[in-house]
Amino acid sequence: MLTYVLSRRGSLPAYDYLYRCIRRDILAGRLKTGEKLPSKRALAGELGVCVATVENAYAQLAAEGYIRTKERSGYFVLPVMEQRNAPAEQPRQGEGEPCERAWLLDFKANHVEQGKFPFTVWARLMRQVLSEEDKELLRPCPPGGVYALRTALADYLYRARGLSVLPEQIVVGAGTEYLYTLMVQLLGREKIYGVEDPGYDKVARIYRANGAQVRYLGVDGGGMVCAEAEESGAEVLHLSPGHHFPTGVVMPVGRRQELLRWAEEDGGRAIIEDDYDSEFRLSGRPIPTLQGLDHTGRVLYVNTFSKTLSPAFRISYMVLPPALAERYRDKLGFYACTVSSLEQYTLARFISGGYFERHISRMKTFYRAKRDAVAAAIEESPLGGRSQILAADAGLHFLLELDTDLEDEELERRAADAGVRLSCLSSYVNGNHPVQTHRVVVNYSGLDPEKLPEGLDRLAALM
Amino acid sequence: MLTYVLSRRGSLPAYDYLYRCIRRDILAGRLKTGEKLPSKRALAGELGVCVATVENAYAQLAAEGYIRTKERSGYFVLPVMEQRNAPAEQPRQGEGEPCERAWLLDFKANHVEQGKFPFTVWARLMRQVLSEEDKELLRPCPPGGVYALRTALADYLYRARGLSVLPEQIVVGAGTEYLYTLMVQLLGREKIYGVEDPGYDKVARIYRANGAQVRYLGVDGGGMVCAEAEESGAEVLHLSPGHHFPTGVVMPVGRRQELLRWAEEDGGRAIIEDDYDSEFRLSGRPIPTLQGLDHTGRVLYVNTFSKTLSPAFRISYMVLPPALAERYRDKLGFYACTVSSLEQYTLARFISGGYFERHISRMKTFYRAKRDAVAAAIEESPLGGRSQILAADAGLHFLLELDTDLEDEELERRAADAGVRLSCLSSYVNGNHPVQTHRVVVNYSGLDPEKLPEGLDRLAALM
Repeated sequence: MLTYVLSRRGSLPAYDYLYRCIRRDILAGRLKTGEKLPSKRALAGELGVCVATVENAYAQLAAEGYIRTKERSGYFVLPVMEQRNAPAEQPRQGEGEPCERAWLLDFKANHVEQGKFPFTVWARLMRQVLSEEDKELLRPCPPGGVYALRTALADYLYRARGLSVLPEQIVVGAGTEYLYTLMVQLLGREKIYGVEDPGYDKVARIYRANGAQVRYLGVDGGGMVCAEAEESGAEVLHLSPGHHFPTGVVMPVGRRQELLRWAEEDGGRAIIEDDYDSEFRLSGRPIPTLQGLDHTGRVLYVNTFSKTLSPAFRISYMVLPPALAERYRDKLGFYACTVSSLEQYTLARFISGGYFERHISRMKTFYRAKRDAVAAAIEESPLGGRSQILAADAGLHFLLELDTDLEDEELERRAADAGVRLSCLSSYVNGNHPVQTHRVVVNYSGLDPEKLPEGLDRLAALM
Repeated sequence: MLTYVLSRRGSLPAYDYLYRCIRRDILAGRLKTGEKLPSKRALAGELGVCVATVENAYAQLAAEGYIRTKERSGYFVLPVMEQRNAPAEQPRQGEGEPCERAWLLDFKANHVEQGKFPFTVWARLMRQVLSEEDKELLRPCPPGGVYALRTALADYLYRARGLSVLPEQIVVGAGTEYLYTLMVQLLGREKIYGVEDPGYDKVARIYRANGAQVRYLGVDGGGMVCAEAEESGAEVLHLSPGHHFPTGVVMPVGRRQELLRWAEEDGGRAIIEDDYDSEFRLSGRPIPTLQGLDHTGRVLYVNTFSKTLSPAFRISYMVLPPALAERYRDKLGFYACTVSSLEQYTLARFISGGYFERHISRMKTFYRAKRDAVAAAIEESPLGGRSQILAADAGLHFLLELDTDLEDEELERRAADAGVRLSCLSSYVNGNHPVQTHRVVVNYSGLDPEKLPEGLDRLAALM
């Protein structure tokens, strides 16, 4: 007869404890294959519990395949391998989040000012969605995203970016990185993808992680060099014509037309236009998109709200040319949309209620002031006469050309020793395209004005 | 001299309208390459606007590469290709969301009851996060997800699923579909993936869309057949041992051990355990996980909150064995987390505050009652004597075996004509594994009790 001390069960229900005890004995080989278990009534009497308790324990063991019932005959142990080192029965303690080094000054942190995000408006719109669109929230989200959001996006793109697109051409997704992986699936992983050099290497890593080959194509004063695309054998180009990171180059219309002609020459070619941070052009109108110039349906447009709203959100979208939108529906339309519908409906209201454009406008004012303050601090520091600010009229970064004889790597190393984190343009070269040295990429938006003077002093001292 | 009628500019600022006019003339070839534009002062006088207006328009044209400034000499048109069919200048109207057919009765809709989700609690927790964790929201989210959520998940998995894992083993992502694509990148797209047949074909489509090969492996009364895995050459198995869709089979412990032994035999093998809907086991304790039995680090566990909270959210997670968690960090740790941190922090509070488990418990009661009501309605209908309910003790679906001579396809067709949407078990066969016919897969959770009697009458009449 099985004997277990049920008083040791702590807070577990009796049936649950009994089930665990018998399971342990089966796994430990103390109860052998084919062995008959005591009848429910007999075991209940032995343990001083009611029959239902044993019944529940046996039912669970049977459901998991440890025992089986033979009609009118009883319960028998099924063949189960003995298991010596059972899994840990303790919850385990993690190490916690890794600490990051605290820098006096960090030119590299890709910081977005979030204190200005109107979370109160957002929370109010979200409550409205919860109470007014409860029916809509019950419906499954279309694969391309909530239709109200795609309509609001199409309207916004027309107003702000001069794009004339249908909501049906838009696919909403959880971040541009995710959208890149969809693009590889749409355009083909057997193709060669050309990316900008210097550039943001994550793009190349994502294409490679998805099985595609990558070539690094040079960037000159007009952006990606078209001749290199031709020579490289690339069939898909990934570029940021509106504002190249990190050089800040805006691609002139002539180069845009040249690239579109390149794309037209072969049916398999395409261009991915990454319009990241185009909203933050700090002087003049925004630069129109490459997709807006394209008549032949070769340009896939992609943009994100992580920079414009807050990185606490993960909402991006792509605009596909009509034929590719069709191909997407056929080939990848089975994917569920990756963004919560609650956030999609809220964002739709945020855009169509005008809050988004007002927020952008406020942020431009804020960033312009911030950029000017950083530039003034540099001018007033000992770096003033020994540096020059370049490409400062757009986005959240500019270049600071230093008058120094140090090699870039040595400069970065010495700066790090002095508590200043920086990267030169040269450290964004991932292929083999030489760039001008002594140009520090300054992500100014997150710089702490109070620490700036000391950081700049230290920088000037080590040059 | 350029003449434009600025009064036609509508609500556009004068400089913007002027910029558009000159751009149009350059693109149309009316202004030729090398042509000199009038001086700012002259054009301003001609148009009756201030000099700053012309200056702004010229600056924008220069920024976009249509014209350039020659020092002390003026503004000149740059080489730009003529463009005949300019992009549409009208916003386009979409067709709207496609309408879905309204069914009298829909056994196929994978409906989750959402009216019960405590949105009020959720909204309150979200407000708390916004006011109390504003600092945390400012920090970039770690690639695996917000640490507070991963800790809450590890605690929950210990309490509810008997799993003892570190928060560091958990990766949060926007939906299981997205996590499958990460798994292919982690385990290798050159491998063969074995999926369940019958089964949910989307899994196979996702693996194929990511470049992997798929084999369909049979399912018997114990779940996926291990011998078929051996023969197929599959190196990764994707299965739902806790509750197979659509048969409802729970994999017994003996088969689990057999599959774990299969995985141990070769270093490249792995098992993906899809624990989808395990929370809704309606009788007895939940079935323990396969990962909990695994000592050799071959099982990747994946689950979602779309079923347990609401499909309006898109939050899933995977638990990687320690070595694979390490490999993930090295190889794919560059991917940003795809779920908004606001939702992650809110979910962390929802779980650690006990709301999640209370919600699950309420939903189990609700679904149990719903299942019983549907079963009773079937019993009372003309189908009562001509059908049998199978596999009804878990999840949100069961099988209804019908006493009919109709072929499955004919049954589905006639039912559709009568306004009843249904699929038989056989329609979930994607490979070549025969299954028992006349078994209808009933997703009971979304059935409308008022329409049920008539739908069942119609179904009985056409059999």
